[in-house]
Amino acid sequence: MTDTIAPDWIAADWGTSNLRVWAMSAAGDVLAEASSDQGMGKLDRAGFEPALMDVAGKWIKGPMTVIACGMVGARQGWAEAKYDRVPCPAATNGFTPAPTKDATLNVHIIPGISQDSPADVMRGEETQIAGFLSRNPGWDGVICLPGSHTKWVHVSADEIVSFQTYMTGELFAAISDYTVLKHSVDSTGWDDAVFEAAVNETMSRPERLAANLFSLRAEGLLHNMNNEAARSRLSGLLIGTELAGAKPYWLGQQIAVIGAGNIASLYVKALGLQGAPATQVQGDSVTLAGLIAAYRRLKG
Amino acid sequence: MTDTIAPDWIAADWGTSNLRVWAMSAAGDVLAEASSDQGMGKLDRAGFEPALMDVAGKWIKGPMTVIACGMVGARQGWAEAKYDRVPCPAATNGFTPAPTKDATLNVHIIPGISQDSPADVMRGEETQIAGFLSRNPGWDGVICLPGSHTKWVHVSADEIVSFQTYMTGELFAAISDYTVLKHSVDSTGWDDAVFEAAVNETMSRPERLAANLFSLRAEGLLHNMNNEAARSRLSGLLIGTELAGAKPYWLGQQIAVIGAGNIASLYVKALGLQGAPATQVQGDSVTLAGLIAAYRRLKG
Repeated sequence: MTDTIAPDWIAADWGTSNLRVWAMSAAGDVLAEASSDQGMGKLDRAGFEPALMDVAGKWIKGPMTVIACGMVGARQGWAEAKYDRVPCPAATNGFTPAPTKDATLNVHIIPGISQDSPADVMRGEETQIAGFLSRNPGWDGVICLPGSHTKWVHVSADEIVSFQTYMTGELFAAISDYTVLKHSVDSTGWDDAVFEAAVNETMSRPERLAANLFSLRAEGLLHNMNNEAARSRLSGLLIGTELAGAKPYWLGQQIAVIGAGNIASLYVKALGLQGAPATQVQGDSVTLAGLIAAYRRLKG
Repeated sequence: MTDTIAPDWIAADWGTSNLRVWAMSAAGDVLAEASSDQGMGKLDRAGFEPALMDVAGKWIKGPMTVIACGMVGARQGWAEAKYDRVPCPAATNGFTPAPTKDATLNVHIIPGISQDSPADVMRGEETQIAGFLSRNPGWDGVICLPGSHTKWVHVSADEIVSFQTYMTGELFAAISDYTVLKHSVDSTGWDDAVFEAAVNETMSRPERLAANLFSLRAEGLLHNMNNEAARSRLSGLLIGTELAGAKPYWLGQQIAVIGAGNIASLYVKALGLQGAPATQVQGDSVTLAGLIAAYRRLKG
């Protein structure tokens, strides 16, 4: 398959579940984009170069620079990228080269960020933060990046000061799919009022989480609580517990929530209930901005 | 298969995962016992009578009374048994008959117990509590029954006043088996000091649960925390959160922990760390005592 697109470089957001690539001009314009489900979690080390060529090979007719961020740099990824340690800028030049069979393919993996105590790590979010800061120079406050592993990141004077990861999204999935609640919360519907009540209730009594979870089952058995309400309440219980834990991060701070769609708006809504206004920022666009900023640093 | 055992009645503890039966004399002596993995979760309605006959048929040569407790009385069980509603005695006479093809087989299912608000239910634990109280008449305090769904039960003046279920055991299983932590906590070892530190830490900061969970992963990546320590810490985090939530139950109360083996001793240990001495009671023996008390009421 050939293509008339002739990029100067390729940007790659390569997570656990998916791979997304953009054909880029040197000036930072997007010429084309593509994606696949060949995330890090599905690949062994030898599988990364072919997986990249599957989506981006049509754009590559000679030597090519690729800038990649995300779990592609994990220990189980293409090549283990180093971690910068906080406090540090969101974006540094410590790229890790990935081994390639094609010697004209130059793949640079962006470093992750680690924190010694409490122990914590990120891979990919640092690029979103760098992208956000490239558009909002001098921004000071707390960035929340919701997902399987939601990050709360304190940014000040162009550095990441500290951060904290909450396994909230993955807990939601494990509880919904692999506990007695799976039949109670199986729904695509949504009840905002139930979500909001659960957030507020949990903010004041976060220690009751495991009891509140079983109550979802009992409410179904005794009072016919429907699945839509149970799912909304489960989400509110988990996000409420997280907001209670992360309160030292967000209280009195300027807050930006970076993420796509529904999950990010739930965080914005939940924060609003606590009197903490937050700005929602599209995740895709800041990821790309972060990759562009990395390319500029690489080219010096 | 025939047998020389000739019981007057059969006691059955029939949970979600297993079935356990005892051949009993009218006086309450155990003549024989047997068990199988044919728990409620594996059976459809027509499967219960054959499953009972598989383990107890050898003892049945004529009309027979069977007293059963547990999830056999759930909506998906042999027959849906009613709930008594708190406040109420642990043991009442509202048995539900199960439909049988063999008309000489008389199966009586012990009622569960429900609570309107907060909504909660139990099936099986009421029989253990009744058995415990039959051996400790007039006992007043809080009974903790650890398991997939740990119960905290306030008993006073021979009645169950209120109770609360924590999904702690099932959370432990779902997190261990179905999240990013599965590789971090895969161990059969145990580290008491790590468990105890996690309990104490979580008692004072229960809202940080989801962050502490991700830290297990990060501690492994950055500081080589071993799986034995990670598993012990996961257990301590979850039990500590539960103890924080259940504190209004156990604080200043006489406490009995009913359960088998390791999990019950973890609760006793964790409570001891909070200055709350608890007595451990073997679960099997009080289950049987509760079934015997039910037989006496039936014949009574």
